[in-house]
Amino acid sequence: MPRSVRIGVIGAGSATFSLGLVKDLCLTENLKGSEVSFMDIDDDRLEAVTRMAERYTDEIGSDLRFHQTTDRSECLQDCDFVINTAAVQSHHHQADMREVYERHGYYYRAPAGNSFYNFNLMLDVARDIERICPEAWLIQSGNPVFDGCTLMTRETDVKVCGLCHGHYGYLHVAKVLGLETDRVSFQAPGVNHCIWMTHFFYDGEDAYPRLEKWIAEEGEHYWRSHVADRTHDIQMSRGAIHQYRLYGLMPIGDSPRSGGWWYHSDIDTKKFWYGEPWGGPDTHLARPVHVEKLDSRLAQIRDAASDPDVKLTGVFGSERTREQQVPIIDALTNDVEGQFQVNVPNRGAIEGIDDDVVVEVPAVINKKGIQPLNVEALPRKIILEQLLPTILKMEHGIEAYKSGDKSMLLWSALANHQTRSYTQAYAALDDLLGQPGNEAMDEYFRYPWDESHDRYLQAGDDPVAQSAD
Amino acid sequence: MPRSVRIGVIGAGSATFSLGLVKDLCLTENLKGSEVSFMDIDDDRLEAVTRMAERYTDEIGSDLRFHQTTDRSECLQDCDFVINTAAVQSHHHQADMREVYERHGYYYRAPAGNSFYNFNLMLDVARDIERICPEAWLIQSGNPVFDGCTLMTRETDVKVCGLCHGHYGYLHVAKVLGLETDRVSFQAPGVNHCIWMTHFFYDGEDAYPRLEKWIAEEGEHYWRSHVADRTHDIQMSRGAIHQYRLYGLMPIGDSPRSGGWWYHSDIDTKKFWYGEPWGGPDTHLARPVHVEKLDSRLAQIRDAASDPDVKLTGVFGSERTREQQVPIIDALTNDVEGQFQVNVPNRGAIEGIDDDVVVEVPAVINKKGIQPLNVEALPRKIILEQLLPTILKMEHGIEAYKSGDKSMLLWSALANHQTRSYTQAYAALDDLLGQPGNEAMDEYFRYPWDESHDRYLQAGDDPVAQSAD
Repeated sequence: MPRSVRIGVIGAGSATFSLGLVKDLCLTENLKGSEVSFMDIDDDRLEAVTRMAERYTDEIGSDLRFHQTTDRSECLQDCDFVINTAAVQSHHHQADMREVYERHGYYYRAPAGNSFYNFNLMLDVARDIERICPEAWLIQSGNPVFDGCTLMTRETDVKVCGLCHGHYGYLHVAKVLGLETDRVSFQAPGVNHCIWMTHFFYDGEDAYPRLEKWIAEEGEHYWRSHVADRTHDIQMSRGAIHQYRLYGLMPIGDSPRSGGWWYHSDIDTKKFWYGEPWGGPDTHLARPVHVEKLDSRLAQIRDAASDPDVKLTGVFGSERTREQQVPIIDALTNDVEGQFQVNVPNRGAIEGIDDDVVVEVPAVINKKGIQPLNVEALPRKIILEQLLPTILKMEHGIEAYKSGDKSMLLWSALANHQTRSYTQAYAALDDLLGQPGNEAMDEYFRYPWDESHDRYLQAGDDPVAQSAD
Repeated sequence: MPRSVRIGVIGAGSATFSLGLVKDLCLTENLKGSEVSFMDIDDDRLEAVTRMAERYTDEIGSDLRFHQTTDRSECLQDCDFVINTAAVQSHHHQADMREVYERHGYYYRAPAGNSFYNFNLMLDVARDIERICPEAWLIQSGNPVFDGCTLMTRETDVKVCGLCHGHYGYLHVAKVLGLETDRVSFQAPGVNHCIWMTHFFYDGEDAYPRLEKWIAEEGEHYWRSHVADRTHDIQMSRGAIHQYRLYGLMPIGDSPRSGGWWYHSDIDTKKFWYGEPWGGPDTHLARPVHVEKLDSRLAQIRDAASDPDVKLTGVFGSERTREQQVPIIDALTNDVEGQFQVNVPNRGAIEGIDDDVVVEVPAVINKKGIQPLNVEALPRKIILEQLLPTILKMEHGIEAYKSGDKSMLLWSALANHQTRSYTQAYAALDDLLGQPGNEAMDEYFRYPWDESHDRYLQAGDDPVAQSAD
């Protein structure tokens, strides 16, 4: 007999995410009678989400219970699953930070990593789980999935499964090639945001030749004429195909979005590689469009929430989402076996990567747990040029976080290819840490030398003045 | 009873190196009766070196035999030791290459690795040793020691020991601090050209506090007033001390010479970090001075060689050199145990580095072989910011060499922090490969796409025209 569960949701104030979860639960007969405990630090959003969840469940006529709290310990009590979808810093804070580093000569790429707050939160959640519900699975659904899941699995004994949407990029490849998506099968292992399609089959036949044909016959026309209707529509861009040419495998989802600094140096370069009209999602043209879309979705939800006559099934639909959380919960709880794309410690799944690094791999999930599938070895070139540099950056970020050594942040800023001088990186970092909202980070990180008398700036250098030009 | 040996010297045409070796052999009673087989592709230099070696030995009244050949197989016959000191490309070819990449906007740093010819030679030598004298030790004394020794130990079964002078940099630290060098002991493990002084003792007491005192009381004055008399005099420069501040350990020898792109972006920056008058050894001011010094030493040797009345002991002296080759040969052959700084496969000597990477470590050498000493674990920060990036670059260079994939050279050029655009790197690489002397390399490396119709240059880009500005 199927078993109901208790699911804690950290960062439940995201209505889109939480209502998607509720919808999937409503549509999963096995999990009938389950309880969802919503936790958020924002009381108003928490209240709104909980009321909507109840209304939605009523409309559908499903059997779920809801609980709301601003107290994490209370939320975690007796949980079988914890979904952490919280992001510490808002889009608006991120926009403020971008303004600071643009002032220092950086185009849309932070000079130094800023996972400090997210790492703090992730570790706090994982440690609370260890204490309160040690048998629970933690489903990490907020970024940075790769760095955060690696950190949590190293520092705690919690069972962690990281999730991301990126791997669905294969559907976009299929669509542009004119393939019916339900006849496509694929594998795309790697680490989160750096995954590579090793298998791409259509009715069991290698579909890469179809991609080759498309590139030869239609690629150039597509790149010159395609106008994206979504800022994130870069899966078939010239940049993605260039990476395919370099490596012989398609980068999937968020993977072509990074790839190398040379795709990103300015807006014209970005448009060349990622297409019109935005040059991909990470530009001053695209980002406001994306945030506005999120905001207007939020406004629509807020309107629906405040109007008891609106049918929430109309707003949120009544089809399953593409999210993997609920099917994974059902698989682990009720043995409804399925194949998923998950982020778990490597332990030999991908050759050439340490066991304690969290990798993104296909896995069969059932009551026995998460069982990564054998994947094909990735080409040595991808390991050396893409995965190992990404992993090294992650390791560096984790060590900086653990040590509180400000010079490691400086080193990241210097490693940013847009940095032109030591002084520029030095000044940009100081200015970033000095911004409102970054006080705790500023307090935590310290140079290993006496900052009041820095012998390492060139004589006559005023870092702030210099950075301003 | 001590045993004499047969030593093959590949690249024996370097008179300074070969006569130093002969001198050390003459002064090593145990190796009396040994034979040295000089091999070089330059007949004239080979002849001159062999005659000088004979004259020098006669002057000293020592018992050594010499053999000369331009045929490597003949040279290797019955060798117990092979010393490879050959460099494939001359200083003058290197200067030509620098001119090319300066034209493309690079200041004194090659946009792409060029170990192709040295790797070819090293592997040829190692494979010949496997075939002809498989029990011989190969003492690798030409660069790149790190990359080359790693490649040879992976691809062949030859016993390889790489040597370099860099670790003697600790003597310079001692000298500037006013310490008597024979009372100093030290350890500086890492990989060649990236070694870090974990131990620094004076009469058995930690001498780092003396360095701290010097920095606080004399550093600034030294950096502002010191005028180097050798281009390579950078061991106590502001740049080296900055790296010490970052890592808590002194970088030794050639290590502070790299460290990070920001020390190297232009001549003023280099002078700030590495001092007057040259800004370290890798500048357009220093290099000609260094090459001229080598050339004038060569002229002096040539004069001495052509004048039978000149005493060669006057030209080369009659003291032991600081070179480790002969003492190591004596240790391995006659059990005259000693401690040396060698480059051998890691096999656990340094934590956090793969076993099949060649590391530079102190080792006790005797008849039983080369036995690396336990070294202190290097700080995680040095591993992450210095060693792993250096190792990754080495792995990348080896894979590029083995695959012949030109886009891996392009990737190196793009990774160079001085590169400003994809097109710049692309053009610089093409121009470099097109230079006289690089024909075999140009023939070997191929892009994984059709070069005749490159879709990855921006519309209207003429790579050569663009790179010229």
